[in-house]
Amino acid sequence: MTTALLTDRYELTMIEAALRSGRAHRPCVFEVFGRRLPGGRRFGVVAGTGRVLDAIADFRFGTDELDWLSDNGVVDEATLQYLADYRFTGSVHGYREGELYFPNSPLLTVTGTFAEAVVLETVVLSILNHDTAVATAAARMVAAADGRPLAEMGSRRTGEEAAVAAARAAYIAGFSATSNLEAGRRWGIPTMGTAAHSFTLLHDSEEEAFRAQVESLGAGTTLLVDTYDVRAAIETAVRVAGPSLGAVRLDSGDLPELVREVRAQLDSLGATGTRITVTNDLDEHTIAALRGAPVDSFGVGTAVVTGSGSPAAGFVYKLVAHRGDASEQWMPVAKKSPEKVSLGGAKRGERLLHDGRALAEHVLVDDDRDGVPEADEGTPADGSHGGTVRPLTVALVRDGEIDERWVGPEGVRRARVHHAAAVAELPLEAFRLGRGEPVLPTVVR
Amino acid sequence: MTTALLTDRYELTMIEAALRSGRAHRPCVFEVFGRRLPGGRRFGVVAGTGRVLDAIADFRFGTDELDWLSDNGVVDEATLQYLADYRFTGSVHGYREGELYFPNSPLLTVTGTFAEAVVLETVVLSILNHDTAVATAAARMVAAADGRPLAEMGSRRTGEEAAVAAARAAYIAGFSATSNLEAGRRWGIPTMGTAAHSFTLLHDSEEEAFRAQVESLGAGTTLLVDTYDVRAAIETAVRVAGPSLGAVRLDSGDLPELVREVRAQLDSLGATGTRITVTNDLDEHTIAALRGAPVDSFGVGTAVVTGSGSPAAGFVYKLVAHRGDASEQWMPVAKKSPEKVSLGGAKRGERLLHDGRALAEHVLVDDDRDGVPEADEGTPADGSHGGTVRPLTVALVRDGEIDERWVGPEGVRRARVHHAAAVAELPLEAFRLGRGEPVLPTVVR
Repeated sequence: MTTALLTDRYELTMIEAALRSGRAHRPCVFEVFGRRLPGGRRFGVVAGTGRVLDAIADFRFGTDELDWLSDNGVVDEATLQYLADYRFTGSVHGYREGELYFPNSPLLTVTGTFAEAVVLETVVLSILNHDTAVATAAARMVAAADGRPLAEMGSRRTGEEAAVAAARAAYIAGFSATSNLEAGRRWGIPTMGTAAHSFTLLHDSEEEAFRAQVESLGAGTTLLVDTYDVRAAIETAVRVAGPSLGAVRLDSGDLPELVREVRAQLDSLGATGTRITVTNDLDEHTIAALRGAPVDSFGVGTAVVTGSGSPAAGFVYKLVAHRGDASEQWMPVAKKSPEKVSLGGAKRGERLLHDGRALAEHVLVDDDRDGVPEADEGTPADGSHGGTVRPLTVALVRDGEIDERWVGPEGVRRARVHHAAAVAELPLEAFRLGRGEPVLPTVVR
Repeated sequence: MTTALLTDRYELTMIEAALRSGRAHRPCVFEVFGRRLPGGRRFGVVAGTGRVLDAIADFRFGTDELDWLSDNGVVDEATLQYLADYRFTGSVHGYREGELYFPNSPLLTVTGTFAEAVVLETVVLSILNHDTAVATAAARMVAAADGRPLAEMGSRRTGEEAAVAAARAAYIAGFSATSNLEAGRRWGIPTMGTAAHSFTLLHDSEEEAFRAQVESLGAGTTLLVDTYDVRAAIETAVRVAGPSLGAVRLDSGDLPELVREVRAQLDSLGATGTRITVTNDLDEHTIAALRGAPVDSFGVGTAVVTGSGSPAAGFVYKLVAHRGDASEQWMPVAKKSPEKVSLGGAKRGERLLHDGRALAEHVLVDDDRDGVPEADEGTPADGSHGGTVRPLTVALVRDGEIDERWVGPEGVRRARVHHAAAVAELPLEAFRLGRGEPVLPTVVR
């Protein structure tokens, strides 16, 4: 399955015009960044990077695509020939997946000819804007849950393929599992889920339904107890499954009082080890409001997959430098319209730390290099402010070769581990849920 | 490409448990409906129906899927055997794609055995919740644009596959075109787009860029005029392309004053036929604010593809009836938890009209039929309230056979035409942009 047509038409018409003007093969640097954090958040979480690398690998114009472009007069013959041979041969550097970001963090830098780099714009932004919005929201929920596990179960509330990506992004940001089977298959994420209200309604009684589920899934299963009367359902559940019942789920259980009553009832029935899981349209605020209640785990749907009010991260993909014809020098470029001033030049990021605590986001403009930010994973080095600096920009693709560390289920696992380490560096104020300013200042050096 | 794993795990564990309890093959009716309209909207627009039918056709568990389910212990051997033979053999009735809907409108009714119908829940809801949210937002933008054409160009602000679906939904709701090439290929939607700021920045001057574009795309092209100075750019644009220049695009042009100045300058240069297209983060409110300005067309991105503040329609998929064992009678069922009372029984919808103007949404519970709402397209018939009634529920799938009228590019075209006719029936108050109540009352009869 090619990703080549998941692309705005103007990327191709620009290639056509640039082929004619002789500028199509100018070496260029494009940068992905956001001018602000979505929704007054204190920090953002980069997600989608591994999927971007897959999309670049699959970006090929086959016969079907070329025929359609030709039949519909999208571009001329010379452009079709260019596209037929398209392979990305450039380099991509950027923040590791799972890393945190702030306004103007240089998240991704694509270096290549104008034509080969510009044509990736749409699909790169689609993936990063979506996945990062989900991960950024998910990280707030993880913080609000205060160590209790969260499952992503919002597949039904977003596009069917976006659902798979959302499960992946939430997992990177610290969720423990997903309801989505394809996310399990494709990305190695643990899947969960037992039964819906329809299962109870199908049977002639709640007891019959519970017996059927326990016989099939064992006493360790999670029984949904709010189809009719919660109190009666819990009594039935413990009678049917015994006190070793795994868990009960409250799909209308966002009330701390209800959760406390359920806990007391379970304990009185001897089911002291039975966990309580709560679902029903939770978001970071309702999760935080359940902080004192005896909830053992949360299931989150709509809010996480739609970015909890900020469904797109707002990243842009801008040309920041190209090589002139006369010299081999990189020339920084930027548009100059009011409101949207951009900073030219290829960039890389560093995080300034003091005693392991993040203090600032440093953005370094590197005009004297070869257009490619060069930095690698590594331990923080001594910084100039008495603290240490942790390099944030790593090589993702070199001369068309994708670094396999960042893709597939292994890339997801790596991103999740890295994310947890990056979040651990944040100051406490990062976890305030109200709208506010970024918790770290971005300093352009 | 199968859709079978775009599914929540619990759909499969419910099948396993129901196979054991002997209830898996009970005839059931599931209904898709929304308890309210998203975001205080006055009406909703059904979209995604054709894609749901495709997803049902592609819902097959192949060797890869079965192996993964088996290796991961998701379900037992008997369930794997059931899934290996899975074909949907039931019936689906529902609102036509493009139709309007209101709270509790019975949008889709799936009739089949419990197992074959429940397993479709996740993918059916993913598609309808996403596509309908986009179409519902898009219809408000179309109304705000007051007859001027709108192009959808938000691919970069939503998941890469969601982008294709969003383009389709916006087109059904009255948008004229999309930037997304795959939406053009897959659904026959007109595509548009010429150049971005990077194209101007690539060249050594704006004039060089404009010349390249006009040479390649002709004088009828749209030149982007706000990379540097708008006034100077327009002067250059008309000098390069001549007064027959097709259009200028303002990507920071949500100011009526700016648009008026641009119009005056174009006219003074003799480019009286050159159109003005405006983009920059528009939504229904900023479009409405440009009503008096000489804008010729709009390009809308983030707001339309993310449902303008309501990214998911909030539909649910509920078991509303099943057959008992003792009798052939359909038994309406509904859960009884507080807050979420549902109405049991299979249903169909009708719209009450008077002099061609919509007055109310009628929901009819049909318990005495064969569990399947039967109605067809047709001219409105005499109603009981002095008006006429237009049947809203049509057959989409009969005994596993998909009605081809509703799928593919032809289905999209049909939905767009039907949508325009349905919107024309609405009273004027439907087009108020502020939050409010549904413009038609839903009457359950």
